[in-house]
This record gives sequence, C-alpha cells and structure tokens, in this order.
Amino acid sequence: MYFHDRRLQFPVRVEKPDPRFARALQQAIGGVEGEIRVCLQYFFQAWGTASRGPAKYKDLLLNTATEEIGHIEMLATAVALNLEGAPLNEKEDAAKDLVGASVMNGMDMRHILSAGLAALPSDANGVPFDCSHIYASGNLAADMYANIAAESSGRVLATRLYNMTDDAGMKEMLSFLIARDTMHQNQYLAVIEDLGGVSAQLPIPNSFPQSKEVQDYNYAFVTNNVSGEPPMEGRWTSGPSIDGHGEFHVKQMVSEGDQVPVLKPSPPMGGGQVEHSADSPHGLVQQGMQIAKDILS
Amino acid sequence: MYFHDRRLQFPVRVEKPDPRFARALQQAIGGVEGEIRVCLQYFFQAWGTASRGPAKYKDLLLNTATEEIGHIEMLATAVALNLEGAPLNEKEDAAKDLVGASVMNGMDMRHILSAGLAALPSDANGVPFDCSHIYASGNLAADMYANIAAESSGRVLATRLYNMTDDAGMKEMLSFLIARDTMHQNQYLAVIEDLGGVSAQLPIPNSFPQSKEVQDYNYAFVTNNVSGEPPMEGRWTSGPSIDGHGEFHVKQMVSEGDQVPVLKPSPPMGGGQVEHSADSPHGLVQQGMQIAKDILS
Amino acid sequence: MYFHDRRLQFPVRVEKPDPRFARALQQAIGGVEGEIRVCLQYFFQAWGTASRGPAKYKDLLLNTATEEIGHIEMLATAVALNLEGAPLNEKEDAAKDLVGASVMNGMDMRHILSAGLAALPSDANGVPFDCSHIYASGNLAADMYANIAAESSGRVLATRLYNMTDDAGMKEMLSFLIARDTMHQNQYLAVIEDLGGVSAQLPIPNSFPQSKEVQDYNYAFVTNNVSGEPPMEGRWTSGPSIDGHGEFHVKQMVSEGDQVPVLKPSPPMGGGQVEHSADSPHGLVQQGMQIAKDILS
Amino acid sequence: MYFHDRRLQFPVRVEKPDPRFARALQQAIGGVEGEIRVCLQYFFQAWGTASRGPAKYKDLLLNTATEEIGHIEMLATAVALNLEGAPLNEKEDAAKDLVGASVMNGMDMRHILSAGLAALPSDANGVPFDCSHIYASGNLAADMYANIAAESSGRVLATRLYNMTDDAGMKEMLSFLIARDTMHQNQYLAVIEDLGGVSAQLPIPNSFPQSKEVQDYNYAFVTNNVSGEPPMEGRWTSGPSIDGHGEFHVKQMVSEGDQVPVLKPSPPMGGGQVEHSADSPHGLVQQGMQIAKDILS
Amino acid sequence: MYFHDRRLQFPVRVEKPDPRFARALQQAIGGVEGEIRVCLQYFFQAWGTASRGPAKYKDLLLNTATEEIGHIEMLATAVALNLEGAPLNEKEDAAKDLVGASVMNGMDMRHILSAGLAALPSDANGVPFDCSHIYASGNLAADMYANIAAESSGRVLATRLYNMTDDAGMKEMLSFLIARDTMHQNQYLAVIEDLGGVSAQLPIPNSFPQSKEVQDYNYAFVTNNVSGEPPMEGRWTSGPSIDGHGEFHVKQMVSEGDQVPVLKPSPPMGGGQVEHSADSPHGLVQQGMQIAKDILS
Amino acid sequence: MYFHDRRLQFPVRVEKPDPRFARALQQAIGGVEGEIRVCLQYFFQAWGTASRGPAKYKDLLLNTATEEIGHIEMLATAVALNLEGAPLNEKEDAAKDLVGASVMNGMDMRHILSAGLAALPSDANGVPFDCSHIYASGNLAADMYANIAAESSGRVLATRLYNMTDDAGMKEMLSFLIARDTMHQNQYLAVIEDLGGVSAQLPIPNSFPQSKEVQDYNYAFVTNNVSGEPPMEGRWTSGPSIDGHGEFHVKQMVSEGDQVPVLKPSPPMGGGQVEHSADSPHGLVQQGMQIAKDILS
Repeated sequence: MYFHDRRLQFPVRVEKPDPRFARALQQAIGGVEGEIRVCLQYFFQAWGTASRGPAKYKDLLLNTATEEIGHIEMLATAVALNLEGAPLNEKEDAAKDLVGASVMNGMDMRHILSAGLAALPSDANGVPFDCSHIYASGNLAADMYANIAAESSGRVLATRLYNMTDDAGMKEMLSFLIARDTMHQNQYLAVIEDLGGVSAQLPIPNSFPQSKEVQDYNYAFVTNNVSGEPPMEGRWTSGPSIDGHGEFHVKQMVSEGDQVPVLKPSPPMGGGQVEHSADSPHGLVQQGMQIAKDILS
Repeated sequence: MYFHDRRLQFPVRVEKPDPRFARALQQAIGGVEGEIRVCLQYFFQAWGTASRGPAKYKDLLLNTATEEIGHIEMLATAVALNLEGAPLNEKEDAAKDLVGASVMNGMDMRHILSAGLAALPSDANGVPFDCSHIYASGNLAADMYANIAAESSGRVLATRLYNMTDDAGMKEMLSFLIARDTMHQNQYLAVIEDLGGVSAQLPIPNSFPQSKEVQDYNYAFVTNNVSGEPPMEGRWTSGPSIDGHGEFHVKQMVSEGDQVPVLKPSPPMGGGQVEHSADSPHGLVQQGMQIAKDILS
Repeated sequence: MYFHDRRLQFPVRVEKPDPRFARALQQAIGGVEGEIRVCLQYFFQAWGTASRGPAKYKDLLLNTATEEIGHIEMLATAVALNLEGAPLNEKEDAAKDLVGASVMNGMDMRHILSAGLAALPSDANGVPFDCSHIYASGNLAADMYANIAAESSGRVLATRLYNMTDDAGMKEMLSFLIARDTMHQNQYLAVIEDLGGVSAQLPIPNSFPQSKEVQDYNYAFVTNNVSGEPPMEGRWTSGPSIDGHGEFHVKQMVSEGDQVPVLKPSPPMGGGQVEHSADSPHGLVQQGMQIAKDILS
Repeated sequence: MYFHDRRLQFPVRVEKPDPRFARALQQAIGGVEGEIRVCLQYFFQAWGTASRGPAKYKDLLLNTATEEIGHIEMLATAVALNLEGAPLNEKEDAAKDLVGASVMNGMDMRHILSAGLAALPSDANGVPFDCSHIYASGNLAADMYANIAAESSGRVLATRLYNMTDDAGMKEMLSFLIARDTMHQNQYLAVIEDLGGVSAQLPIPNSFPQSKEVQDYNYAFVTNNVSGEPPMEGRWTSGPSIDGHGEFHVKQMVSEGDQVPVLKPSPPMGGGQVEHSADSPHGLVQQGMQIAKDILS
Repeated sequence: MYFHDRRLQFPVRVEKPDPRFARALQQAIGGVEGEIRVCLQYFFQAWGTASRGPAKYKDLLLNTATEEIGHIEMLATAVALNLEGAPLNEKEDAAKDLVGASVMNGMDMRHILSAGLAALPSDANGVPFDCSHIYASGNLAADMYANIAAESSGRVLATRLYNMTDDAGMKEMLSFLIARDTMHQNQYLAVIEDLGGVSAQLPIPNSFPQSKEVQDYNYAFVTNNVSGEPPMEGRWTSGPSIDGHGEFHVKQMVSEGDQVPVLKPSPPMGGGQVEHSADSPHGLVQQGMQIAKDILS
Repeated sequence: MYFHDRRLQFPVRVEKPDPRFARALQQAIGGVEGEIRVCLQYFFQAWGTASRGPAKYKDLLLNTATEEIGHIEMLATAVALNLEGAPLNEKEDAAKDLVGASVMNGMDMRHILSAGLAALPSDANGVPFDCSHIYASGNLAADMYANIAAESSGRVLATRLYNMTDDAGMKEMLSFLIARDTMHQNQYLAVIEDLGGVSAQLPIPNSFPQSKEVQDYNYAFVTNNVSGEPPMEGRWTSGPSIDGHGEFHVKQMVSEGDQVPVLKPSPPMGGGQVEHSADSPHGLVQQGMQIAKDILS
C-alpha cells in the first residue's frame, strides 16, 4: 500500500512559459520512453516476477516504482507551468506572436481543448500511453533488460529535452531526472551481476537446456546478402560468444529441408472462392498442387 | 532492396493439428515479444540509427531483420497447419470433441471468421500488433539494449511454447527459433563490447556530460519505505557502480526544496467552473492560495 | 512524492485457485472500469484541475489516487494467486480436467505466455489499458461526474465478480473493494454539493453565459421518431429542468434553415478524380451543383 | 431502423475558412469528448440496457442518439468548410502567409493527405476514435452518470471552441451545440430523478446488498498523507453521506491483516530463470521466503 | 439530419440462445469487416468526398449509411438474445454444462462483466472498433474500391457465421444481411461504371498525368525471386493492362542507381552515442563513411 | 525466406531538406494508405489465402510483398534526408527561421525526441501503424479488392505528396512509387480477370448459394429518405446488376415483421439496478413490457 506527501521530490520551476516545450515534455510523461511506462512496469514486475524468489529484488522494484510516480508528478507540473498564459483564442495567439510564428501552431491543441492547460497522459503527438508497453515477463533477467532498455531510451529523451530548452528551471529539473536515469541503468545492470553475471544468466531464460537448441544455429551469424559476399567483421562474427557458451561463426543462409509450404484447399463452407474449394469442379486446385510440386522437381 | 525464395528457412511440420496451439503461436507472430516486432525494429534501426557511423552495425541489422521475415513466415505456416481440420460450425465442433472440451472454446474465433484458417498479425488474444513497439532511438547503445530485451522476452516466449506442446514437428521448429534467439541475444551484447564495453557506453547516451547531472542522485539508491527501514542489501546499494563512474549508496527520499505545486486560477475563458476562475467573485481561489501557503508554514 | 509499505491494505486470500477467475479479475485491473484508470485519472486531476483553486479538492484526490495504487496491487496479487498451479502444457491441462472442460480454454493464455503466471495491465479479453480513458478536463465539476461514472461502472463490475465466484477469500476482498466504491461514489457527489450543489454547478461549465445559447433548444427534448408520434413522458419532457434554469418541453426535430451542404469541387491538385475537379471539362460538377440546388427549389 | 433527410438540423456557415480551426473542431467529432462517442454510446445503451424494463428510457436514448448523428454531420461539414482554400503545397502555403506563420504548420496534414480537405473520424491530434469509450454497462444508473460525464466534457469542449474562434458562423453553430449539451446534461440527471432519486439509486448498483460490504470502509474517507496530518475538511469528511445510507468519517490508512504477498517459486517449465525455479539448486528461493517471513517477525 | 423508427428493418429471432455465437456475432458489429465500419465509412464519404460533384453519389451513400445503423441494431439485438440465460457464475456454468464443455470458456466474459448481457462495440476477441478503418479519401473511385473491399470481407464473414450456426432464426437474419451485401458489392461497382468505367477511372487518381510516372515501371511486373527464375505466368505478366493504358511485361528487380544510403553523423546534441557524433574524436564515423564507399567500389 | 541487397531499388535524393515534408512522408510509411500496410498485407495473403489453390497467386504476392519492403526503406531514407539539419533547440529553430514560421512547429517533434532525426513507423500525425489493417481473409477475390483499395488510396496519397513538394529529388522518387502503384492496381484487377472475371467472382464469396439470400433484397437499392421521394437515378437504380445475376430496382425501406426488440429483465445477480431486475417488486418491468406491447397494438 502507498502513501503520499504533497510536496515534490525535486523543485519544478519555469522561468518563461513555453507551450511548445510543454508539448515536448509530454513525451517524457506518456511516450513509450516516458515515466508512466517505467512506473507501471516496475510495479507489475514487483507484484509478479519479483514476488517469487529472493525478496530483495521486489524491494528494489517497489522503491523505484514508487519514486517514479513522483516523477510523473514533477513532469505534469512542468507541463502545466509551461502552459501558463498560453493563448486560448486567435486574437491572443496573434497578440503573443510578434514575428508571426504562431504559438498555437506548435503546441498540443488538446492542452487547451481537453485539459484546460494541464498535462495529458499522452506523448508529444497526443497519442495516449497504452499498457502494452508494460513488460513483466515472469523472468527476472528478461525484465531487467527491459528496464535497462527503458531507462536508456528515457535518458536519451531527457537529454534531448535538456538540449532543446534554454529555461534554467527546466534544465535543473531535467538534470535531476537524468541523474536518476543514470542510477536506474546501473541498478538494473547490478541485478544481472547480483544474479551471477551475464554468462550465468544468458541465454535468457537460463532454465531451458541448450542441448535442445538446433546446434548449428545458436552461435551462428546468419547472412543473407544476395551478393553472397561475407558480412563485415565485428565482435559477433568470430570469437567466443558473450555468454561464453559457444563460438561465434558466420553462416550463409540456406533453406534447411527445401520446404515450399502448401496448404490444403479451403473447406467447402470456409468462405473462400469456389476456385479454392476442396470440392471445386474447376480443377484449379489440383493444378495448383501440381505446380507447387513442380517447383522443387 | 529485398529478394525472396519461396522455400522456408527451416522445415515446419505439424503432426497433429491443434487449433488452440495455433492461437498460442499467434503470440510469437503479433505479440509484443513476437517476430513482427523484431523484424520491423531491426529494419528501422538499420535505416536510421545504423545508417550513421560505421557501416558494420547496419550490415548486422539488415541481415538479421531480413532473416526475421522468414521467421514470421515459418510461424504463419505453423498456425495454418495447426488449423487444418478445425471445426467451422457447432456440429463439427461437437463431433470432434468426444469428451466435451470444445475445440472452438480454446481457439481464436477470428481464425475462422476473419482469416479462413490462417495466421493473423495479432497476439494470442487477438490484439493486433502496433508499431509503437518499434524502438529505433537514434542511439545505437539504447537500441542494442532494446534488442536484447526483445530477444529475451522472445526466447522466454518460445520456450514456453516449446513446453506447452507435445507435437514433435512444432518442438523441432521451436528448437530452431530458440537457437536463433540465443545468437541474437549474444550478438547485440557483442555490439556493446564492440563499441568499447559497458563502462564506455554507459550511462546511455554517453554524449551528455555527467558533470551536468545533479550529483547526489546519479548513483544513489533512493528508498521510500514508509517505515523508514533501510533497503535490503544488493549489488545496487553499495560498491562501485556498474559503469565504473560512481559509487552506489543509499539515500532516504526527501523533498528537495519543499515545493507544493499550485497553479494559477483558470483563465476566464478557459472552460473551468466559475469557482476556479481568475475573476471569480467567490473568493474561493484566494482561499485556496491561502490554504496552500498554510501547508508549509 | 510517494512512499510505499510492502504490506497490502487488505488481505488477499484464494482458497481454490481458478485461472478463469484470474482472467475475469483482469477487467478490474486493466478494463475501462478498472483500477489503473481511476488511479491515473485522480492523479492527473490532482496535478491539473485541482491544483487550481481551493486546496481541499487536491487533498481529496491525492489521497484517493494513492489508495488506488494499493487496489491495483491487491488485484494483481489476486490474479497471481488464482494462477497458482495453472496448467502449462497440454498434458497438465488434460490431467487437471476430469470432466473435459479444459482449464486452458477459459484462461488468458498470455498469463502463461507473457507473464509467467502473474497479472497483466489489460482487461478480461487481453486488451491493454490505454490512457485515453483518463479524464482530467480542467473543469472540476466535469471531472467529478467522470469520477462518479467511473466508480459506478467499477462497482457494477466488482459486484458481478463477487457474484461470479464461490471463493470465500475472493468474496472477502471484493467486499472491501465494493465498500470503497460506495464511498468514492459518495465523495465525488459530495464535491458537487461542496461547490454549491447541482443547480449552481450546472450546466457545466457554469462559466459560459447561458444567454449565448440558442434559446429554444437548451431545455427542449428533441424527438425524431419518423412516425411523428410524441415521445413517452418522463421527468425530462416537462416540468422545471434539473438545474432549475429552464423548463423542459418537447420539440419535434426540424431543419432550421433548410441547408443542404455542398462543398466546392476538388482543387486540381487535390488528388480527386477528374470528374470532381474544379477544372473538369466533363461538366459533371456544374450538373451536381444544379441538382443540389434543385433539391430545395 | 433509421431514416435520413439531406438537410442539416441547424445551419453551418463559415465566414472565413481557417484550417487550424478545422483541426480544433476534430476534437468535437472524434475526441473522447466528441459526438461519435455520445452517438454510439446512446445507441448501445438503447439496444442493451434500456431494452430491458420500462420502454421510456429507450425512447429517450433512441431520440438523442439519432439526433447526434446529425451533430457529427454538422461538425464534419464545418471542418470541410474551414478547409476550403487550404494550401496544398509549399508555394501556396507561403503565399497565403503574409506574416510568416505557416498555415500548414497549424493544420492537420491528414486533412490534405488522407481526406482531400474533409473531416476525419479522429481527434485534434489525429488520433482515431476508438469504441472502448462506449459505455453501456447494463446498469441504467451507471449509464446515466456516464452520459452526464460525456455531456459535461462535451460542453466544456464546445465552449472552449466557441472562445477560440472569431467566426460568427462558427459561433452560431456552437451556440446550438452548447444548448443541446445543456439539455442533455439535464435530461440524464432527470432519469436519475425519474428512477427515484440519488438516495434510491446509490450506491450503484443498488441491487447489491450493502450488508455485504466491509462496514468500516464504505463511508470512510481514507487518508494516506505520510505526515499523518488529518485531511482538509470538506463535505466528504463528516456528516451524512450523499446517498443517506451512512455517515462520512475520516480513517487513517492502515494495513488490515499485515499481509506481505509472496508467490510460489516459478514452476520448472515456466520460463523463469533457474534462480526463481521451484527446483532451483541455488537455494535462493528458500532464502527469499525466509527474508519475506522475517519482514513481519 | 436523421430519424428513427423503433421497429427493426428485419426480424431477429433466436431459437436457442448460444453465448458463444453471441461472441462470434461481435465480429460483424465491431470487427474490421463489420457494420460500424461500413456505417461510419459511408457517412464520412457522404459528408466529404461525395458532397463535391454530382449529388447522386451522396444520395447513394446517405441511403446506405443510414440503412447500416439499422444493421448494427439488428446484430446488437441478436447478441443480446443469444446471451439470454447465459451463466453468471461458476455454479450456473457447471449446471448448464452436462458434458463438461463450459459455456463461459467460449463466450466473451465482458458480455457478463462489462455489458450485462448485451452487445459491445468490439470484435469477436473483444478488441474495440477503432475509426482508423473509416476510409473517406476525397477520391470517389478510391472510396468505391474501399467500399467493395469492405462489403466483400463483410459478406465472407456473414456466410461464415451462417455456416457456423444451426439456429433457424439466426440463419434467417444472416440471409437478409448477406443479400444486402450482395447488393452493396454491386452498387459500388456500379458507381465505377457510372463514372465511365474501369479504363476511364484507372489509375486512381485519374487526375495525375501518367506522363510523369517513371515509364519503365508503371506496367512492369517486378520479380525478385533470388533464383532468378521467371515468374509464373498470369494475366498480369503479359497482354494489355486492365486500364488499357499500357502493356504488362516482366522485369527482374535491379537497383536503379546503385545507391547505398548513408546518413550524416549524429549532431553533437542529438542524443546519440559519442561514437556516432559529428564531432567524435574516435574517427569511427570517418571509417564508416569509408567502408560505405568501399562497398560500391 | 528472404535476402537483402544494401542498395536501394531506386535513388532517393533530397535537394533541400524540409523537416515538415519529412512529417508528410510519414503518412506513406505508417499511414493506413502506406507501405508497411501493403507489405504485410501481401505477405499474410501469400502465407495464408494464396498458399491454397494455384501457386501463381502466391508467386504474384510474394514478389510484390518483397518489393514493398524496399519501398519502406526508400521512404525511411527520404524522411531521414529531409531531417538533415533540422533544429534541435529553440535557438537553432529561431535562427533557421528568417520570416517567423518556426520549423519546429510544422515538424513531428518525435523525429527529434524519439528517433534522433530518422523515420518512425507511424503516420503524419505520429499515430503508430497497427496491424488491424492487414486484410488476409482467406478469400482470394476479397483480398484482391482489399489490395486494389489499398493501392488506390496509396496512389492518391503519393500524388498529393508529389504536388506538395518542390524538391526535384523527392518528385523523382514519388514518380517511381506512383508508377508502381499504377501497376499494382492493374495487377490485382488482373487477378479477378484471371479467375474468370467479375461476373464469375461476384458476389464474394461465390461459394455461398445465392438461393439462400432473401430474394427481394439482394439487388434492391433501399432508400430511407424521410420525405419519401425517390432516389436520384444512377447505374445502381435500374438495369442488370454488375455481376449479371440480378436486376437493380428501387425499394423504399420498410420494417419487415414490425418487430420492436424487448429484452428480458436483468437477472437478479446481473449487476443492474433493482428497477430492471427480474425479481423487482417495483412493477416497473411489467409496466415496461406493457408499454412495449402497446406500441404495436
């Protein structure tokens, strides 16, 4: 269960409101790289995956998930403060705009129409966040990589926002959020180490016996350049695999088994055209089967 | 540009069609852990992020993206083969079902209604894949972690499908896909190494000067347990950070600056209630401001 | 900012795990009537609308929003407990099912495939929650009615879940959630009273002068039954309006102004067919205009 | 069944086309506060909920649903008229724009690209309407509150559009739609009165016996301010409840039962990491269980 | 503007309610092949595209769009009637199910939980309809082909539903809807003929001068079979084109211009890794450029 | 299985980068009229519908699907090239903008924030593509009409983009894509002819016996103009039907059977209000039934 404190975790100041930057900040609230995503992702991992096994991983996740609510709160406040004094009609818009670049053109109109000058749970294009982005797979290592990925795209976004604005207040707030993302990237990598390290944890899931994998293919870099030329060399084309369980090598793509898939004719009541039906008098089906066979002969 | 070969990369056999397993396989086609996602993700990374800088990363991504089309093809074929002979109406359904567990109940009805016994680009619950899941951030390291995350959840899914079925043909196909996921996890970790390793690449993006971060917070594990008790110890509570740029330590959450956010009254034409308006005669707004101030006094 | 306590607000017990009921419970987590919705809705209202004007409304909303996180937590736990021992493959499924009604058929397959026997942020059909359902309009009265609507559909859902299960533990948890919904319906209606009551608050927004409304239509019940028969009588066909600002009366739908809308021909470079173009030599456009005029002559 | 008249219910005139206002109007067509939503919502309620019990409620809903189709039509016409003469290419755009504020920047590009200067069934940000917003719960009182909420946000939106434009024709059309929203708010509140009033109808659903609610919690305002200070006083903290069935009182949040949820280890074939598995040799699971127990001891 | 008649266009009878068939019918309401789609599609075409040019096309579309509302109504009624007596809890479900095939397993649980035994505006998997499927392009011929496509998939669906059920009432209703789809396919093809026929209308849009097309490619069937073998012969590989403006011929895919796309390095503040930055000291970028050039040399 | 060639199928040149045109081009990538849609649509048809019956249709589809990947690649490259030098912050934006029309206002901010100046798999409004638009019905003729519709809206879009830009490089690329759309429209119409022509293929599906249709309605143009006036004459009001199986005629809409649908009262545990319940003591239900009966008497 959860508690609140009506104060913010870190101050949010806006020196010069900018409705367009309000729109940009929305990406950090409701974008796929944003804070609603990580908040809910860590909660669902805590309540699912990490409620199994050692309790410390759940402790980690609950702390960070709870902190993230406060980050959404900070950003929602920042959006509202950037909208103070935004134009509500055409005259105001023209008046604010001495050089002709309309404020309304660059802002999210729904900040006026749907929210009354406050934040929305959507991204910089007004697309609402949807929870298909909450990864909580039941596998702790997979979840940690999902978290590292989320914090990486999140910090990339936050630095772009930092670079976009000249407002000292906004830069200060973003410096804080960027710092937290640094920690979060590190803490989720620390879980991998805590669990025994990359080699012990990979391939994920490590509970599936690798002896059941098709052996030729589990450490092969497959190329399919139509020219047949070899791939450019990289760490992935030769040498020991990162998990230490195999040896990287290059393999030109081939068709194992030479199978051309052919499906049975449509059943008579299957809604197909007569020409595809199992009881077709047209003979097309038989012809089709023949042609398919001919391909390989 | 791209070329096709009508043969499959690896054989797809179904010994005993099972419409319910066809539904389960849909998760590997159109689920967020599925093959449409990784295919398009690697393509957009190749055409964007990796078209900048050294060409070898694009070479890597184009090869794997192109291979993934063929994996969607294999899975789509597997779905169709599992649907051979599926019941199309109530009588057939009852006839197929000697012990009373209706086949139709467990299958995706849209396999009959919308696809005529073939695969759909949706997940095991019939939710269509949407491209908000394609991560191509313009930052190569962030993209690699997104790929590792995708391949981890993908391999977890594939092993669950392997464990779910008893069909030897399906197990064989999945053994191949699981092997490929092993390689893909390794190859994307190999890119991080190729770029200089975790310490050089983190925090992502490494182009933002860490001196601009709020220093107390970038390696602090923040706890907010209402009891005030210290967090459980883990690799993330003390010791050098994973990126080697700092030292992990624990910090109890506090409010820096003690700010309670208060917004200005709604503008007169802003669509609020009179009671929230800037020109409200009710005096409620002034009262509100006062109360807000009182909180901190 | 926010704090956590790793204990639940109210106990969650499951006497006999039921994977199908786990699926039903998902509607209360990620359905449009569910807890993620109300949680985020109250937060965004608190951070937006209610951060203007008297502070007590924000106090109300922050308390309830924060409580709702704990309700998602309880339900997520209930889902996971109902999935304990769920079948992971065909053999297990058959073994569990003595009379032929497959457990897998009725459960959400993604509970196995995507979550490893834990809750998902989606509804009973596996459709992920999306934040377009978060109403925070910047108008306090509109927001309160949105909250009453949410708590009404939420309590309807909770009682249906209560009626669906025979598990004493689940009934106990639902009795708690139903009680909270009762309070929440009452507290949001209490805000309307606190603001001065229905008559003072309606029509929402009350900051728009009703003198600007088209007067004949603001208290008229408009009927459009093609038979021309009068509407059935109800509280809405006569008598004083609920807001007390007008008198209900019945009005047969007519076309004010008799306008048949006609648009200009497509511009030459507008991507239309030649026949619709402004510079069409076919004369069809002119003909169309003529016909449109003839309709009213 | 339904009939049409090609004339509009109320005239739609645009004095000076404004492609940006066309975009704003989209919110009233395909936004969550818009007319497609209420139209379909009232239809589904009429065909479902209100087809049970007294026929007058269905009569009410069918009339209003049918009227709403005509409102979408009016708005779609208004969008198209505001797009007359919109620029189709860069030169036209520059020519129209004497002071440098590009028309194209502020408009919905899909009005050109996808619709050929006509309305789209999407909102002001181009997000298509989706029918998850159609509330038809099978409970008449819950549906009525959903309708009041929809008409409240709808009228808030319409007044914001009215305030945004200077076009006399658009203001006239919006004066009509605003008047209709006034009536609709009143008529749905009238249904609650018609059914016996708030006290008789609440808590919704009124068919669930309140004796089954956890009694301490159904009229308690629960606070979770971490400081432990009492909540600000409002109509909801003391006095009789709005439904008249209880007495409001304040309750500090506590954990009833002190339960820390712990899930069983992942089953061996569940796709988790070895470290979380039921047959893990690592002993971590046992350790985790122990730690979890220790929390409460 | 629009009118209603509370009677149905065609009778809806259900002899033996079947909650599973109720779920199947949902595809015809809220599926992409369903009636909400065609209803709104024809309305938006009527209000947009067909409000330009000759009035008869709008007359056609308004009539059919209005009819389609009544089809949604019929199907919504059919769903509700199929849900009469559906089980609401586990005991009822077991009681109804003599042979073990649970009714609840095959039905849409939201029919119980969210709708109270009535229709939802979603498909057979519970995915809500979304209006991105409304095609109204501003080009009359393109719209007609979109309509033919919709009516084709709609009639395929309706015949599959007809074949799925044994209920005489349901078969009768579907016989009516199937008949209407026959007419609708024909009437939209009739518009193409009315406009002058396929050759005059194609390629769509016919307002773009074909002289501006890259001439070698506008009637070439391009093959990219990696084996280089010629494509199978069909009507599309030789002979006059269907529009009569060209001659079909086969062309092996080649790279016109041999361009390997390379993007500039990431700008210094663009959020990329240092290694991709324009001012990178690593020299990797230059190396990348070189390698890219080498590919073609 | 599939192969790649790192060269583009056709050159992509941008003479003067234009971030706003980059946004417009997104519609051709991730819009419903765009290339991701046709690419995946043809693949799923090839792997499903066209894997039944004569092999030549699959050969056709695989070739074109594979070609379309290369078109997405071209457009993604075009987007990235149009973003070269786009402003990343407010100062750059102001500097680039001599006359006041901000570049940032017209561009997709996520091109900066989420993609680092590269393409996204979304439309011109930033809405991600979703795979519900992939039509692969299991009926070859229905699929072909879906393809013609897709290529028609696709070519309409491409010509609008051509008309929107003045960049010679972009016009050249679009001339190529427009040419391909011309071929694709023709080739899918050619399949209908190859299968025997419109009359043989219609109504789709042609495997359902037309004798089972309600005969009066399958070639009747139904009108529902409330004035009762006859419809405007067109090819669809008289003469032989396009499929040659019937005769067009006009029919005024009537209610066959005069059925007013009434549903049974809500079951006692169905979550409705008491007033709608089967065991209601209020007598309202009986009253409702009576009124419903009275309507028809």
